[in-house]
Amino acid sequence: MLCLRSQTQDAWLERACSHTAEILVDHAHCERKAATQALTMLARFPDKPELVAPMIALAREELEHFELVMTALPRYGGVMEAQVNSGYQTELHAAVRKEMPGKLIDLLLVAGLIEARSCERFKLLSEHHPDADLRAFFRSLLESEARHHATFVRLAEGFADRDSVRQRLGELADHERAVLERMPPLPRIHT
Amino acid sequence: MLCLRSQTQDAWLERACSHTAEILVDHAHCERKAATQALTMLARFPDKPELVAPMIALAREELEHFELVMTALPRYGGVMEAQVNSGYQTELHAAVRKEMPGKLIDLLLVAGLIEARSCERFKLLSEHHPDADLRAFFRSLLESEARHHATFVRLAEGFADRDSVRQRLGELADHERAVLERMPPLPRIHT
Repeated sequence: MLCLRSQTQDAWLERACSHTAEILVDHAHCERKAATQALTMLARFPDKPELVAPMIALAREELEHFELVMTALPRYGGVMEAQVNSGYQTELHAAVRKEMPGKLIDLLLVAGLIEARSCERFKLLSEHHPDADLRAFFRSLLESEARHHATFVRLAEGFADRDSVRQRLGELADHERAVLERMPPLPRIHT
Repeated sequence: MLCLRSQTQDAWLERACSHTAEILVDHAHCERKAATQALTMLARFPDKPELVAPMIALAREELEHFELVMTALPRYGGVMEAQVNSGYQTELHAAVRKEMPGKLIDLLLVAGLIEARSCERFKLLSEHHPDADLRAFFRSLLESEARHHATFVRLAEGFADRDSVRQRLGELADHERAVLERMPPLPRIHT
């Protein structure tokens, strides 16, 4: 699914369903971070005009989702607080190449993989979470996560030939699987 | 005006009017940074729910402005590129107190002062820039910059008594004036 190289285990779903407040708090952080990172891409690569419209659209949509999660949070007992870094994003980014254009391509593909993993897990929550409202909520986010994934991969393909980007996506997806396997069992979207 | 402790000199206005492309490029960077910083406030102070709605609204509006400036840019020969840091924001932030709640109050007030300075200068450009479209453009942004300034000051007043916040605002406005006087004469919004 969506180029991921591993399927989420039942243990994650059980943990997520029994820690709804924590999952929603983490989800809010994820949406806020995704909005910020879209803008950070424009700050780091101001000379790539093809990034501007997609990153603005992305930031806007992530901001909307952030607001939706923040609104839902109190109903499930969630209280926003600072978070210990799980290491997922940091470890994913450790594989990003240092030189251009590999650096930009990898940053786009890593962002795409994060969206793909969110999408896979929101799908599980949309099917199996005990709360019907939350099932509907996660279902409503699925389409845009899948679209964001596709946007990042398409943008990456603008900076190298399609085959080499697809091959690199495979390598980074292997890395994502390995990183995820090492994550501590915290109630997070990406553990 | 808007609690600022100095009035912009003619030299700045002349520089800005004769470097339209550079001013617009800097303006785009400012709007992007302002959107990012609104989200950064929520990342740094996740336990302050009163910040959430105003910072989301602010980020959304700055994102809109960023898009507007990016759209206008090519018409004036502006090309986005990485920027040497002028030091304005860094030096303003050097005065931020280290301990809570002073730290949060100062960050809000500094953000408010940056909006106030933008507002003052957009007003000058809305009156004196030779291009009528740009005059109208800057006029259209004035109201929101003034509102953002007021939002930051109002939020700061939620974390300490009004008099002490107003006094601190005065001190930081003195600091802003001094920082601005030291800035190199680059064609920027805040030099």
